[in-house]
Amino acid sequence: MTPDTPFNRENPELFGLPPNAKRVFAGKIFDTWQWPQKLFDGSEAIFEKIVRFPTTSVIATAGEKILLSNEEQPGAPPFRDFPGGRVDPGEAPLTAAKRELLEETGMISDSWELLQRWVCDGKIRWFIFNFIARDCQKVAEADIDAGEKISSKWIDFEELLMLSDDPKFRGRELKELFLRARFLPEKKEELRRKLFSSS
Amino acid sequence: MTPDTPFNRENPELFGLPPNAKRVFAGKIFDTWQWPQKLFDGSEAIFEKIVRFPTTSVIATAGEKILLSNEEQPGAPPFRDFPGGRVDPGEAPLTAAKRELLEETGMISDSWELLQRWVCDGKIRWFIFNFIARDCQKVAEADIDAGEKISSKWIDFEELLMLSDDPKFRGRELKELFLRARFLPEKKEELRRKLFSSS
Repeated sequence: MTPDTPFNRENPELFGLPPNAKRVFAGKIFDTWQWPQKLFDGSEAIFEKIVRFPTTSVIATAGEKILLSNEEQPGAPPFRDFPGGRVDPGEAPLTAAKRELLEETGMISDSWELLQRWVCDGKIRWFIFNFIARDCQKVAEADIDAGEKISSKWIDFEELLMLSDDPKFRGRELKELFLRARFLPEKKEELRRKLFSSS
Repeated sequence: MTPDTPFNRENPELFGLPPNAKRVFAGKIFDTWQWPQKLFDGSEAIFEKIVRFPTTSVIATAGEKILLSNEEQPGAPPFRDFPGGRVDPGEAPLTAAKRELLEETGMISDSWELLQRWVCDGKIRWFIFNFIARDCQKVAEADIDAGEKISSKWIDFEELLMLSDDPKFRGRELKELFLRARFLPEKKEELRRKLFSSS
């Protein structure tokens, strides 16, 4: 699945599942898939994997600053994250990222790039598409739904890297990247270039 | 859930789910749970979370060395990891860890400690219990089942930390700990002490 692939929860191959996998349960955001798998001694067992609706996360920049969200969702403690959210069926990840950035912050950008596609686990087929949106411009008011409370603030590059120490930062898929950038000068420059200058 | 709590897949509170959550699907290793959740505007929506059978992972040491496994499982590329595996229903994580270490390597230890309990995600209630087993002794031959191929080798502390750069290392829940130990001297000494000297 690429940033331009429409999300189809009925296609197992989109998530690296074998073509003979059957969806045995379709949930709100998690689907359960099973298939018969041959073992090393020739016997067979039922294997199982989970597909979660893919999500997007947008590191939105303007000048030398980066937009961070303070969020609350029902039944969970407050947390910090980047704008983003779930990809709807039929929607491509890049389209979803643009929609979420506009809904949550009122911002648009003409300079999008995929920073990484993170996969949770071999058996948990949850993709997070981390995008960069450079030189963002505010064109509307934020339009937040009843399922969340969101406020935004601008942080600088050093604060971004220190999110790797913040227990309230929810972007776990980015922590390793930020840690390496803190400790390895060439990784730091590489990330800074990606965030602030389009190629 | 602690290292001594028996795994009960029918008890939602063990995984931090609300007491009114209902299990809507019971899979081979993944259960799906749902409950009605009040939103900020007073309306209600069905929320969903996944519980995966908890797993254990054992950093087994002897002298200054650490045991690393090369593993293969049907339908997946080879990988490196520590001994360990799934916690069975009714079994406590520490009991499961001792059982898996013995089955996969023929080793036992009198000096066990929990290094960390890792949780995948707020919505994916998968716990990994990372144990340390110090001063291991071989008392039997390994007894591997048809679902895996496993061979072990001893590595030293510096090689352990460099697993954080190894794309074939499956212990993703330990990568951040190893990265910090590589770059922060006090974290390095803390981890070394935990692995090699019982308190």
